Amino acid sequence: MSTRVAIVGASGYSGEELVRLLLHHPHAELVAVTSRQSAGQTVAQVFPRFASHPKARALRFTEPDAAVLARVADVVMLALPHGVAAEYAIPLLAAGRTVIDLSADFRLRSAATYAEFYGHPHPAPGLLETAVYGLPEFYREAIRQTRLVASPGCYPTSILLPLLPLLRAGLVRPTGIIADSLSGVTGAGRKAEVDYLFCECNESLRAYGVPKHRHLSEIEEQLSLAAGQSVTIQFTPHLVPVNRGIHTTLYLAPTTAFQTPAETMALSEKIGACYAAAYAHEPFVRVLEGKSMPDTKNVVGTNYLELAWRLDPRTGRLIVLSAEDNLLKGASGQAVQSLNILCGYPETAGLLPG
Amino acid sequence: MSTRVAIVGASGYSGEELVRLLLHHPHAELVAVTSRQSAGQTVAQVFPRFASHPKARALRFTEPDAAVLARVADVVMLALPHGVAAEYAIPLLAAGRTVIDLSADFRLRSAATYAEFYGHPHPAPGLLETAVYGLPEFYREAIRQTRLVASPGCYPTSILLPLLPLLRAGLVRPTGIIADSLSGVTGAGRKAEVDYLFCECNESLRAYGVPKHRHLSEIEEQLSLAAGQSVTIQFTPHLVPVNRGIHTTLYLAPTTAFQTPAETMALSEKIGACYAAAYAHEPFVRVLEGKSMPDTKNVVGTNYLELAWRLDPRTGRLIVLSAEDNLLKGASGQAVQSLNILCGYPETAGLLPG
Amino acid sequence: MSTRVAIVGASGYSGEELVRLLLHHPHAELVAVTSRQSAGQTVAQVFPRFASHPKARALRFTEPDAAVLARVADVVMLALPHGVAAEYAIPLLAAGRTVIDLSADFRLRSAATYAEFYGHPHPAPGLLETAVYGLPEFYREAIRQTRLVASPGCYPTSILLPLLPLLRAGLVRPTGIIADSLSGVTGAGRKAEVDYLFCECNESLRAYGVPKHRHLSEIEEQLSLAAGQSVTIQFTPHLVPVNRGIHTTLYLAPTTAFQTPAETMALSEKIGACYAAAYAHEPFVRVLEGKSMPDTKNVVGTNYLELAWRLDPRTGRLIVLSAEDNLLKGASGQAVQSLNILCGYPETAGLLPG
Amino acid sequence: MSTRVAIVGASGYSGEELVRLLLHHPHAELVAVTSRQSAGQTVAQVFPRFASHPKARALRFTEPDAAVLARVADVVMLALPHGVAAEYAIPLLAAGRTVIDLSADFRLRSAATYAEFYGHPHPAPGLLETAVYGLPEFYREAIRQTRLVASPGCYPTSILLPLLPLLRAGLVRPTGIIADSLSGVTGAGRKAEVDYLFCECNESLRAYGVPKHRHLSEIEEQLSLAAGQSVTIQFTPHLVPVNRGIHTTLYLAPTTAFQTPAETMALSEKIGACYAAAYAHEPFVRVLEGKSMPDTKNVVGTNYLELAWRLDPRTGRLIVLSAEDNLLKGASGQAVQSLNILCGYPETAGLLPG
Repeated sequence: MSTRVAIVGASGYSGEELVRLLLHHPHAELVAVTSRQSAGQTVAQVFPRFASHPKARALRFTEPDAAVLARVADVVMLALPHGVAAEYAIPLLAAGRTVIDLSADFRLRSAATYAEFYGHPHPAPGLLETAVYGLPEFYREAIRQTRLVASPGCYPTSILLPLLPLLRAGLVRPTGIIADSLSGVTGAGRKAEVDYLFCECNESLRAYGVPKHRHLSEIEEQLSLAAGQSVTIQFTPHLVPVNRGIHTTLYLAPTTAFQTPAETMALSEKIGACYAAAYAHEPFVRVLEGKSMPDTKNVVGTNYLELAWRLDPRTGRLIVLSAEDNLLKGASGQAVQSLNILCGYPETAGLLPG
Repeated sequence: MSTRVAIVGASGYSGEELVRLLLHHPHAELVAVTSRQSAGQTVAQVFPRFASHPKARALRFTEPDAAVLARVADVVMLALPHGVAAEYAIPLLAAGRTVIDLSADFRLRSAATYAEFYGHPHPAPGLLETAVYGLPEFYREAIRQTRLVASPGCYPTSILLPLLPLLRAGLVRPTGIIADSLSGVTGAGRKAEVDYLFCECNESLRAYGVPKHRHLSEIEEQLSLAAGQSVTIQFTPHLVPVNRGIHTTLYLAPTTAFQTPAETMALSEKIGACYAAAYAHEPFVRVLEGKSMPDTKNVVGTNYLELAWRLDPRTGRLIVLSAEDNLLKGASGQAVQSLNILCGYPETAGLLPG
Repeated sequence: MSTRVAIVGASGYSGEELVRLLLHHPHAELVAVTSRQSAGQTVAQVFPRFASHPKARALRFTEPDAAVLARVADVVMLALPHGVAAEYAIPLLAAGRTVIDLSADFRLRSAATYAEFYGHPHPAPGLLETAVYGLPEFYREAIRQTRLVASPGCYPTSILLPLLPLLRAGLVRPTGIIADSLSGVTGAGRKAEVDYLFCECNESLRAYGVPKHRHLSEIEEQLSLAAGQSVTIQFTPHLVPVNRGIHTTLYLAPTTAFQTPAETMALSEKIGACYAAAYAHEPFVRVLEGKSMPDTKNVVGTNYLELAWRLDPRTGRLIVLSAEDNLLKGASGQAVQSLNILCGYPETAGLLPG
Repeated sequence: MSTRVAIVGASGYSGEELVRLLLHHPHAELVAVTSRQSAGQTVAQVFPRFASHPKARALRFTEPDAAVLARVADVVMLALPHGVAAEYAIPLLAAGRTVIDLSADFRLRSAATYAEFYGHPHPAPGLLETAVYGLPEFYREAIRQTRLVASPGCYPTSILLPLLPLLRAGLVRPTGIIADSLSGVTGAGRKAEVDYLFCECNESLRAYGVPKHRHLSEIEEQLSLAAGQSVTIQFTPHLVPVNRGIHTTLYLAPTTAFQTPAETMALSEKIGACYAAAYAHEPFVRVLEGKSMPDTKNVVGTNYLELAWRLDPRTGRLIVLSAEDNLLKGASGQAVQSLNILCGYPETAGLLPG
């Protein structure tokens, strides 16, 4: 029995990836795609890349309408701007549907934090406690039982997956954490703005959102939960000229001092064991060995996040580096991973590469 | 004595290059820059690249006003869309100013051709016969004496400079000509359109404007003048992911047959002599020797056009290839070359590289 | 029953794509990969992208040895330079194995043409008549029955698929044909040469191999077979800064004159019908409709070739444009398509996107 | 009176920029360029970009020979790998010439640190105390009086210029400093290695040299001198797909606490005043105002470094960001700046943009 899935706001980059994954998903049936600007056009017309798929030629974009969506779909995936997603989630949940929201609307437990970072009151604070943060490696059981998944942001995924196991195990201090991230330009969305024109991004390297990017809110809330205390971190995103991919470099302070080779080796083994315990059986997290370093070109187009770490006895720091595809493990792939969990399918269904 | 120069429509890519060239020009003084959207901001604010130049910090963009421009400038350079440029050219010429127009408005001698290719009647047909096509290599004397220069388009420059000497010398037939061009994305202008977003252009190769691109009108008019008969050509532009640069490949039929090595050598010598006669003393056209092939990376950032040719005894064709910077020799550099000619300055003033 | 497949020369870009396709192929089992430089390393070490695949972690590159390959594999795919491939093909065929060769060694029927274009005598002229040119759309039945498939080159595929149906139907003249192609840099292979360094290719547009590129030999041989007469064409490849993708623009002369809208419409219908007859049921050729133009970003990562055409009444020419992934439909994807045909699997097995 | 300058090792990317700058320098005469691999070719043949310059057509690369160089040049600039540069510097200095070395050979005062970071004993430890670190903003007077300038590395320049004024003024702590840098691929040199092929770098983001990159040695030595105590920092370089440009993000701890808006404002004013004192009169350092952020596209092709800073009351940190062209302010432009100082020319001679 396949699950009927609808995508709201399907004309952006995340939406396009959702469409792609669902067109080829063995157990999901894509029954509706909506977009105000593309309504009336077929999927094949909006995304010529899918033009050979019979369903892409048949299925037309419609205006989004929660009542219609509730009728035709079992699960509705929202690829909408924050603030707008809640407008659809509320009636869909009321109608008994399951919602997987890729926006920031339900990622926080605290409505006050939402208001602080997003600049307006939360549109549906009552739903925050029912929502589950859709990071399968840490919330798999909760995802299985919820009807509202708040799929994590791209930067948060690239930071939380390397960091949560270490914090939970008490291997690194929850203070002084720095995350320095590089993102491809799909991260800015398919918006007609001069800043994201080819010639404004090509041959350009620049930071932005310094020092208080919105994604800090969900990163810090998750880190605080893991650490059992309030965590504040430094986060600097940079825009670099690739289509897809996020690379994050984390600067951490181990709770155990190390200087001698023996101390370094001992700590290294603890970290390795911590990651092995967390990820050895995870289908989509890859801990690199030896001299290998994460490289976005090895994960783009897949749902994998890869990570590596280095201890620096000179500074006493632990450096952890991660790479992911911002549109897959950082957005749509992870959302489909949650869909699989929710529906009881194999977690990798429809996600093995390509 | 320096010349006072104003730039109208200075906030696009061609405008930015004009600003750059004029900020460092030894004999020109940049007295005004206009742009509706940037009015009130300094040049340094709009173009952070120039922020260390004292004049860029002092000079502010203003709303365009022909009466004001006529008062403060001797020469006004128009970097405006076609159709709009004429609105400024008319009063400025009437006020006795000199106009160098980078738009298509005055490039054609025939108002009918303008209407055919641009889709509306010409806004000032009476001015067409006074305008001079600003290709210095072929209209240097006329440029010296006019007050209205119509600076050529980027594609036309890349096609006409390789082709005009051969046509004038009767070395190639005026029929069956094909021009296949590749252009960087600055050619599309600094417009907030989805088609020119980084992620829509990066890792993309596509043709457009097939088969009747607007630039055909001025190319064919100039070729017809050179050939002494009406010339129609095939022209296919392609958009490729570089910021700057046009590469053109021309497919031509020599008027002399060649098949044997001796025939090929003899024709090759004629072509070499033809180009030498045309360009040996030209400061900005470079005819490559030996096995060298034009490469946009060797001309981007300069006002040079480089070209090479190959005879193909298998097909009886002559292939000519050219490379230029679409914003310099294809637009603003060539316009400054005309400015230098008009004002009696050395033709290379302010144009040697960088 | 799965087929045991080995890849010889698997460490280049085409080899990497073959590995990727075969790791996920439902009916093929990758049993050996060879590479002198990578011998001893696992597939996961050489290609970190595949590191999560169990077989990639288990399978090690070996030195190429025809006797060993003949023992372990049913089908051997050769991703080797021309001249070298034949050395392996000869003993493997003698041992009763099936060979799919991605090099140029067996693409020509004429050993004399091979010697002319490749500069040395053909290493195994006796095999040329048994080899089948692996373009499934035109040689499907022959592929099914051969043990030696010569998989076509990347440029030839992008030219032949648009052109063969028109030539066969007599809709275009076999004379005066021009093919102007743009290729991504994977086309140059994974060779440590200065010309293909990032900084030598990025922001660069250049032609090469003018006027007599080696791929002309197989293109012209195939066109001659289709036209029933000897065909010589003009072909100009250009190197442009994308990883993957070939875009080809073909300039053709229809055999029927057209000038009026009615004539143009009539000819357009004939061309449309010709392509429909050729490709309506082909799984990997997409004929675009309406205003759509081929764009490599819509086919990269897939085995599709897409094409569009325009009639130009001004010049009397037909322009046909195509786009493909040079590593898939232009190399490894097409080779797997032949594998599927040979083995009696569904032709799309292991090739639907990703 | 012009200065006769020779460049040893002129065929790499830094060498090419030195050639470009000296071909157009108003007071320097380029008298010799050497390169083993390019010996015998003209500058125009090796660098087609300069083909229109008469001197580039006339001057030929020669084999490097210290005796010859000492005869023909007043100043010799060394664009060689570390370890090799000293071989030329020793005899040239002995012959009374002035040497500007772009390698790492003379950047350190401590031969022991050199041996630790470069893996072999220093080739000429006796020269270390006579060498001057060629960072004009901090060593201008010493440069004026030396005959051996050790021009700084690209990463060090991007880190030291933002950091030295703050450390000297005691505004930030010398402990816990983190520098996270992004570099374009010219930083890897013009070496034929697979890692730097177009397709290996394009669409790739990766860190390297973690945690102990060689440039740390000169960075830490300079920071230690400024702080008056031994300084150890964390430094992570990343390779990103642009040709040119380095972007550095520095994470610093101010010595004064700040949390309230008033405290933040007060500290911000101190930092602003510190930078103004350091750089208001410097020709090549640009401190950005308002919301502007450094962007490599605004400095590539120029000798400027631009920087901005942000205080983060949430974390108590100061973030400083800088952008430069790794080949100009990070290498050849800065070396010419030293040349100008040494020779008593205006410091900006030959360096204003372009």
